[in-house]
Amino acid sequence: MNSFNSLLISAVKNKKSHLCIGLDITPEGIRNKYASIDDLKLHTKKIISATEDLAVAFKPNLGFYERWGSQGFKWLEETMSLFAEETLVIGDAKRGDIGNTAKQYANSLFRHFGFDAVTLSPYMGFDSIEPFLSNPKKGVFILCKTSNPSSSDFQNLSYNDKKLFELVAKKCFEWNQNENIGLVVGATVPEEIVEVRKNAPGLPLLIPGVGAQGGSLEKSMEYGNKDGISLINVSRSIIFSSDLSEKSMRSSAKDYVDKMREIIDE
Amino acid sequence: MNSFNSLLISAVKNKKSHLCIGLDITPEGIRNKYASIDDLKLHTKKIISATEDLAVAFKPNLGFYERWGSQGFKWLEETMSLFAEETLVIGDAKRGDIGNTAKQYANSLFRHFGFDAVTLSPYMGFDSIEPFLSNPKKGVFILCKTSNPSSSDFQNLSYNDKKLFELVAKKCFEWNQNENIGLVVGATVPEEIVEVRKNAPGLPLLIPGVGAQGGSLEKSMEYGNKDGISLINVSRSIIFSSDLSEKSMRSSAKDYVDKMREIIDE
Repeated sequence: MNSFNSLLISAVKNKKSHLCIGLDITPEGIRNKYASIDDLKLHTKKIISATEDLAVAFKPNLGFYERWGSQGFKWLEETMSLFAEETLVIGDAKRGDIGNTAKQYANSLFRHFGFDAVTLSPYMGFDSIEPFLSNPKKGVFILCKTSNPSSSDFQNLSYNDKKLFELVAKKCFEWNQNENIGLVVGATVPEEIVEVRKNAPGLPLLIPGVGAQGGSLEKSMEYGNKDGISLINVSRSIIFSSDLSEKSMRSSAKDYVDKMREIIDE
Repeated sequence: MNSFNSLLISAVKNKKSHLCIGLDITPEGIRNKYASIDDLKLHTKKIISATEDLAVAFKPNLGFYERWGSQGFKWLEETMSLFAEETLVIGDAKRGDIGNTAKQYANSLFRHFGFDAVTLSPYMGFDSIEPFLSNPKKGVFILCKTSNPSSSDFQNLSYNDKKLFELVAKKCFEWNQNENIGLVVGATVPEEIVEVRKNAPGLPLLIPGVGAQGGSLEKSMEYGNKDGISLINVSRSIIFSSDLSEKSMRSSAKDYVDKMREIIDE
């Protein structure tokens, strides 16, 4: 068993951690609005060095690199070379395009940048997802029920008593022939994690929204780890923690992991 | 009146053209699988020089640049400097992320790269779109009913007798307070252009799928230009036309524009 989902399950067990650290690094976050990319690179190294043994995965968000154009993508390329072999790296790209373009993005994200998994948007249907599925070792997390306030604009519309996000979960469950599909569900809507689980038992969940967005760690862990495992993404409250030192970032990450272990052991 | 939508309408009238040329440039397309980025840059220049007076807009698709990482984004930066001031350039990015990330993408696409408009995915709802709307001169085209075969997986689900793509059209119509929202509707599903129009009268349509994907130019022009205007996107059948010379690319673009003028004059 060498599928992405099995690699993820092993990593969670080995590290006794469900922590995914989101890399959404901004000048504002490091409290230096004149920060150069070199300052941001330095902070990236500090984050990884301080927390890599605690985190199962890191999740660079491509928007925060793309903001700087080609220089930002260079920073992302350099970031990718910093991780240890066993660390899983998820490209938070939320891509979704027709097959021909999806192939380019799959080439970019899996081959060029070397991500282990990526996030994708389901709006365009299966042929926008398929080019990412052929290598079982590479995974995708498909947006299902997101953590933002407007997620209900379309995701909660009902069709024959099922909401759109439940139908997305159901379809993804069917598409998961290579054991490399997971779902994104927001910690801000914990009851909906339960609904997603009913429609997609066994699929790993990537749960953002704990921390700055106010989602519940307890409920995300409890609901997200029934019938499958979950990764809990935390970004700002670790990567911009108190005095921005390695010590304070590590301490914040350690607090999260300790709480996760307590919840699992209960 | 200086909104993106009014600029687009003026440009269509001034150039008597509805043509948008998609820049999806690959080594395979220029029939040289060992092509370097310099070869692709050269072909980009040829395309623009051969067709810029005929096209209202160009639409670089970010996936085709991202495939090459930071070097690809450098190519995109260089491409952006090639266009004349009055040429509209649409970044086909299909982004969609929570507000904080959407701001980064808006910075990237509008400020760093300088696109006049971008394509976005509606799946995450209004707060994923809002950061792109504040400057009326910059526009967005939101995915509504796409041209790919799997578009019906989710876009055609019905809620109270309206399909998801119709509800997306309706919401976009409501959100269009700054006259800078348009919709993406595939030429491969011309009847659905009519349904979109009913729900979003007046909104510009970006219609891909003519050419290699087999959509009808006639129907796209006829249905797309009732109650508003449409841009017809053509990529491969212009940019990789016959012998790849400027002459043949121009001739292919000219054929499309002549047909558009005939259809409009009928």
